[in-house]
Amino acid sequence: MSALNPRRTVAELKDLRALTGDENGAQRVAFTKTWLTARQWLRKRVEDLPLEIHNDDAGNTWFTLAGASPKCLLIGGHMDSVPNGGWLDGCLNVLAGVEILRRLHNQYGGKPPVTVRLVDWADEEGARFGKSLFGSSACSGNLNLNEARQLKDKDGIKLPDALREVGIDFEHVKESRKELENAFAYLELHIEQGPVLLDLDLPLAAVLGTFGVERHAITFHGQAAHSGSTPMNRRKDAFLAAAKMSPEIYRIAERSGNGVCTIGSCMAKPGIVTSVVEDCRITLDQRHLDATALATMLLDARIASEKYAREGNLTVTWDRLWQIDPCPFNNGLINLCDEAIRETCGKSHRMPSGPLHDAAEVAAAGVPTVMMFVQSLHGISHNKIEDTKEDHLEMAVTAFDKLADKAIGWIKQK
Amino acid sequence: MSALNPRRTVAELKDLRALTGDENGAQRVAFTKTWLTARQWLRKRVEDLPLEIHNDDAGNTWFTLAGASPKCLLIGGHMDSVPNGGWLDGCLNVLAGVEILRRLHNQYGGKPPVTVRLVDWADEEGARFGKSLFGSSACSGNLNLNEARQLKDKDGIKLPDALREVGIDFEHVKESRKELENAFAYLELHIEQGPVLLDLDLPLAAVLGTFGVERHAITFHGQAAHSGSTPMNRRKDAFLAAAKMSPEIYRIAERSGNGVCTIGSCMAKPGIVTSVVEDCRITLDQRHLDATALATMLLDARIASEKYAREGNLTVTWDRLWQIDPCPFNNGLINLCDEAIRETCGKSHRMPSGPLHDAAEVAAAGVPTVMMFVQSLHGISHNKIEDTKEDHLEMAVTAFDKLADKAIGWIKQK
Repeated sequence: MSALNPRRTVAELKDLRALTGDENGAQRVAFTKTWLTARQWLRKRVEDLPLEIHNDDAGNTWFTLAGASPKCLLIGGHMDSVPNGGWLDGCLNVLAGVEILRRLHNQYGGKPPVTVRLVDWADEEGARFGKSLFGSSACSGNLNLNEARQLKDKDGIKLPDALREVGIDFEHVKESRKELENAFAYLELHIEQGPVLLDLDLPLAAVLGTFGVERHAITFHGQAAHSGSTPMNRRKDAFLAAAKMSPEIYRIAERSGNGVCTIGSCMAKPGIVTSVVEDCRITLDQRHLDATALATMLLDARIASEKYAREGNLTVTWDRLWQIDPCPFNNGLINLCDEAIRETCGKSHRMPSGPLHDAAEVAAAGVPTVMMFVQSLHGISHNKIEDTKEDHLEMAVTAFDKLADKAIGWIKQK
Repeated sequence: MSALNPRRTVAELKDLRALTGDENGAQRVAFTKTWLTARQWLRKRVEDLPLEIHNDDAGNTWFTLAGASPKCLLIGGHMDSVPNGGWLDGCLNVLAGVEILRRLHNQYGGKPPVTVRLVDWADEEGARFGKSLFGSSACSGNLNLNEARQLKDKDGIKLPDALREVGIDFEHVKESRKELENAFAYLELHIEQGPVLLDLDLPLAAVLGTFGVERHAITFHGQAAHSGSTPMNRRKDAFLAAAKMSPEIYRIAERSGNGVCTIGSCMAKPGIVTSVVEDCRITLDQRHLDATALATMLLDARIASEKYAREGNLTVTWDRLWQIDPCPFNNGLINLCDEAIRETCGKSHRMPSGPLHDAAEVAAAGVPTVMMFVQSLHGISHNKIEDTKEDHLEMAVTAFDKLADKAIGWIKQK
């Protein structure tokens, strides 16, 4: 019996990097040649295993190791990357899944207790069309077809036309939903993409769920006025009110416990050196794992914006850009994940995920879900310097495999 | 003897508006056909007076009423406007000067005690090439020829080529300096372009000088980071530091007495909703009539920016965009201006000018100078809604004429 070989996973990740990356990082943007190359390479990796392999109607690739029971354990990841991306984001999940399939196949002589399916989601990153979680949201049923139909890349090519190029019929992508039949649990390993585990000096964490997000544009409306002739107390300075929001969101986030708030952009009009700012538009991104806490953060920001507008003789308008509810993961699976980590490296940690992941879509579709995070050096992702220590990668594969085993036992009892 | 007729000035301003404005405001942009039309119309207004009229090497038009003495009193204004400008900015000055020339000619039978010269400066606004005070800075000698030679309009036409079109040889513009020979005083009337007189409910003010200006770009350098995965206490948020500058400049201006500070633009990079701001560039415009106070304001802003950078684990860099020293006007002429106003409407006010004016160039060239401001309704200029009550316009012409008389007496004693 060939045991789990986490070193092989690290070696395969390096092979993939050599094949599909360049000096600027990973280049596996979904629906490009390099992405197709990565997927072909992936199929080669498992050609010795007795897997049923097919692409679903949304372009997600499913690798199924049939088990004694038709109940399914799903393991997910994504081969696609952002342009100039990191070498681990998405593909670590997939290749750890491959290693688990190998171990299960060898251990059970081809037939594990439950059916185990690895899925390579299509276009998790949304790098080309600006819409992330494409394949998993098609599968979960959350994808808004009317919106997605209109998406264009920077060359003006529409998403349905790009999909046709790779053999996907846009109008039928939601038929991929049937893949979730018999799914009893979904597991996803991912690099953290933040500095929490680095700061704690811990290799692994059990993920409690993905943050809910409230994303708004806030525009303060004042009055343009000459920078030389307008006394300070006569100004209706839209930048001043917008600026007051910045320290305020730090206070709001602190009050919320574990929430985060970000002002990521600021546009000042007329935006010239000799005029008081008439209109100032900022974007506010707020995230929390708890729906009530998220709603409180949003309300606090609204109240603050109205106060600063009043103080400055301004008006303020809010436009919702996007929102998604928090997605708490399954408590039973979180506990199993915690156990698997403690058994592997002694100490675990529980944390929410700020970024979204395919796991949120699967959870939203009603499948019990959990994720495991591995420490990210520099706390950075979506960048060629994204990295994780090799021993942490190996621990991640080991712990994730233990979690798979525990999940199989958990499913059997259902 | 025909007395001063301020109503005629108001009527002429309306005629000029009808001739050179449209539903969006005044369109007398320098070096355009409409500007040339306005200047031709101006020459028509004075054709009955025995004036020597010529354009100097910088395109400024001089109307000279020779006096008993070669000592000159100068009265200045500008016919050019910004696109969609106000109906009074610049041309009120010129037409009040025309009315004074008429009164002096009639009173003295063509020969006042000193020579009186009205100048219509070329391109005060700098609307086309982004460089204001062109004609007066050529005349004062302050114009930087190497910089001005490179200026282009939005169609890529260079300033020297545009000047050639209207008969001006760029390489000789500074020869206009000789026009200031024998200049013993310079007077300029202008609409306030701010709300100070409106707030005080006063029609007129004596201007103490033009503010010195320090204009800088301040860039905070932080670290881009994912808005979902980066805890608040791990951020290097360049927008946060830039935002803290906004309330701070209000405190700095307040401490300075009469100074003003403006953050007019803000650019955040990468400027996306899902990232902490890595670089944030704001522009800071600071103005004060007192050089020491201006230097203190600048130092205070630098110290604050470094403090906010330190607090946020950021760095900050400053780039000077432009600066000009304060230009205090002549105390003797300020007192005469104050007298003329009090004699006209009972109560005067003294205030600095935030915006620059041609008067600052003339003063910098060593000519004793003063300006008079008339109240601006709405406190707004460079806009079609710019306006002043007609009785205030008439008072302005009357008081300005009194000032001219007082200045003539003042010059005679020199």
